[in-house]
Order: sequence, then C-alpha cells, then structure tokens
Amino acid sequence: MSELTVSKALERRRATRHFDPSRPLDEALLKRILSLATQAPSGFNLQPWRFLVVRSARNREKLRACAYGQAKITEAPVAVIVLGHKQPHLSHLDAIVDTQVRLGVLTPEQAAEWKGRARAGMGRQQNLTLWATRSTMLAAMALMLAAESLGVQSAPMEGFDEEKVRAAFGVPDDHAVCCLVCLGHAASTKPFPGRLGLNDVCHEEHFGQPWTLGEEEGPS
Amino acid sequence: MSELTVSKALERRRATRHFDPSRPLDEALLKRILSLATQAPSGFNLQPWRFLVVRSARNREKLRACAYGQAKITEAPVAVIVLGHKQPHLSHLDAIVDTQVRLGVLTPEQAAEWKGRARAGMGRQQNLTLWATRSTMLAAMALMLAAESLGVQSAPMEGFDEEKVRAAFGVPDDHAVCCLVCLGHAASTKPFPGRLGLNDVCHEEHFGQPWTLGEEEGPS
Repeated sequence: MSELTVSKALERRRATRHFDPSRPLDEALLKRILSLATQAPSGFNLQPWRFLVVRSARNREKLRACAYGQAKITEAPVAVIVLGHKQPHLSHLDAIVDTQVRLGVLTPEQAAEWKGRARAGMGRQQNLTLWATRSTMLAAMALMLAAESLGVQSAPMEGFDEEKVRAAFGVPDDHAVCCLVCLGHAASTKPFPGRLGLNDVCHEEHFGQPWTLGEEEGPS
Repeated sequence: MSELTVSKALERRRATRHFDPSRPLDEALLKRILSLATQAPSGFNLQPWRFLVVRSARNREKLRACAYGQAKITEAPVAVIVLGHKQPHLSHLDAIVDTQVRLGVLTPEQAAEWKGRARAGMGRQQNLTLWATRSTMLAAMALMLAAESLGVQSAPMEGFDEEKVRAAFGVPDDHAVCCLVCLGHAASTKPFPGRLGLNDVCHEEHFGQPWTLGEEEGPS
C-alpha cells in the first residue's frame, strides 16, 4: 500500500461527515495508526495521551448518546475517546526514563537528574488540564494524519457532554477528555471549506504586525 | 525535492536540541510550511491558530530571554510563537463563512444558519483558552510534520514565561500562548527516547480495560 506524503495527507484530510458502516477497520491497521500517533512529542517525553478505543456497537451507541446523537459515531467502526493524563509523572515517569536508559539515551546518573527535573517541571504547572491537552492534541493530529496516509478517514469531534462521557466510560478526574476521533471509511466526499490566508493568521516579529510575504507567491 | 510520507515524518521528527545557526530558512519554504499548518481542522472551521513569526536576531534574543535562555531560539533562524485566538467567532466568522459560500460549500441560507450555530456553540464554551488550545495544537503538529517532510527540523517548547512573552511581543489577553516552535536545520542528531507501548496508553471499550491486541503483532 502506498502511503501519502504529509502535504497530501494534510490537503486530503477532511472532517468526515458520514462513514460507511459496512466497511470495518482492519485491526492491524488500527494498531499501526495508534502506534504512529504515539510518536508525537511531549514535555519530558511524558506522553500524556491515552486512547480509549470504542469498537463494540453497544458502546458506540452509548458514546453517541453522550455526543448529541451524532450519527457518525455509530456509522464509523471505531470511535476513539482521546484523553490527556494530567499526572503521568506520578505513574509513568520511571518506565519512560528506564526506556531511555535501555536505549542508551541517558546514563543512570542522567536518568536520576532527568526525573528530578521532570517532577519539578510538572510541579510548576499551573493548569494540568491545559498541559495534558497540549501534547494530547499533537498526538490527535498525528493520529488523523497517519490514518489519512494509510487510507483511513477520520472525524475529530468537540461536540460532546464531557460529564456524560466520564460517567459512561469510567474516565477518572486525573484524565482530561480532549476530543473524540471517529475512524473508518468515508461514505461521501466532503468539499474543502477553505482556510484564512497567511495574511490573516500570521504576525511578523510583534503581535499585530502584518505578515509581509506576498500572499500568492514567495518573494524573489 | 522529495517529501516524506506521514509515517516517515512521524518516525524521523525529533525535538531538535541544537540548530545550525549558519543555515537560514528559505522564505518560500517557511511560507509553504505555515500554509500547510493551516490545513488542520477546527470546530466550525474557526481556525483559532495564529503564528507570530520571529526571525530578526534581536527579537529572537528577546524571545530567548522569555524562555529561560534556551539557546535553540537564537540558533534557529525562525521561532514561531504559536497563539490560540479565543474569540475568532467575533472577528473572523464572516470571512470564514463567506469563503464557504464562494467555494459553493454553503448556500447563503445555510451560511446564515451556520453563523448562528457557530456563535451559539462558542457561547456555550466554558473555557475559551482550552477550546483555542485544542485546535491550535492540531495545527502545531501539522506545522512540525510539514516541516520535517520538507527537510526542515523543529523543536516544540513549553518552557517559557507566558507573561514575559505577552509583554515582549504584545500578545493580548484574547490570545492564548500555546507553545513555541523553533524551525531550522538540526546541528546534531538526537537519539530516539522511546515511547510507551500501546498496552500502556490504550484502553479498550471502558477506561481501565486493557488493550487486547498483541503488543508485537496484530491478531490473526
């Protein structure tokens, strides 16, 4: 199977409106997509993303009821509840640092120092939900682009009742519910809705200073 | 120039430790990377990401002073302050919806309904910083992967003093400062620090239920 380049995947990816419920998602392919998503970066390599993978028809119905009844959740063979672990330094730091020692990236002395810095850095965070959400959304984008590259369409969703999701799927308070991502095969093509130009979204050197590059072509 | 596939870009991308200060970043290439980043998805296509592009040596020194003196900011030819606009529905909704009408994605009647839904949806958001951060970090990942695919290395940074960045670069309160991303050419190769396994980061059907796929190979 030929994969897409990053540019092509970014240009082809759309927030899928309807999935083909007759087309399942191969389990090995799902695993490959999730594994690629974990390649995203995170502060101190703490990898706060967690993927609650919902595949059973019954549980997708349950999730749909937490998301204003949106049909794509039951149409798609897979719905991922994307979570951000707010305290991975308390539970996973040793495993993460041990791996770095095993790979020869850190010496045992550096590992001890790294752990201290990671714990101190996390202790200074004023908003752990925001901290976890940042890296987790990097992984969510990696997930959607990896899927597109491998011939699987996606739909990110922010329209859901967080408290209902927590109650229905047992998500504890130390995990943020960042978004839902449906995965499957699109039943229809969605047109490109356009984007603001670089002139609209870029500032140069100081907030409010316009971007001076030409909009249609690079400068000579 | 041959671009990378999504898989390759995800596997090659590292948080660059040191950039080669003698190698500038071509302006047309920078523009292409930023433009690809804007292809990320967002709720109601509101595109909250804003890129404050810092290239002058003087301003990179200034930014470095807001980020605990980290050398990569002055080594790299470009540092992007990645911002999340918390109220794009107040300033950019008309432009965004007009584009969709022009592209034939929405009829004028649908456009009016869309605007109403977007305003209502944004009115229900309880935390606009979190809302803006989510989509903005999707774009930040797109930015880093597009760069890698086009032969440019990156370094995401969360270690900075937000209030100092705001003061030095005039960032107003209605924009969240989500992260910094340095762009340029790496001066050295950083080893892969490893990742947690899917068994560690995936839950199946309900929080706390382990992922049942084999760790090393897909099920038969």
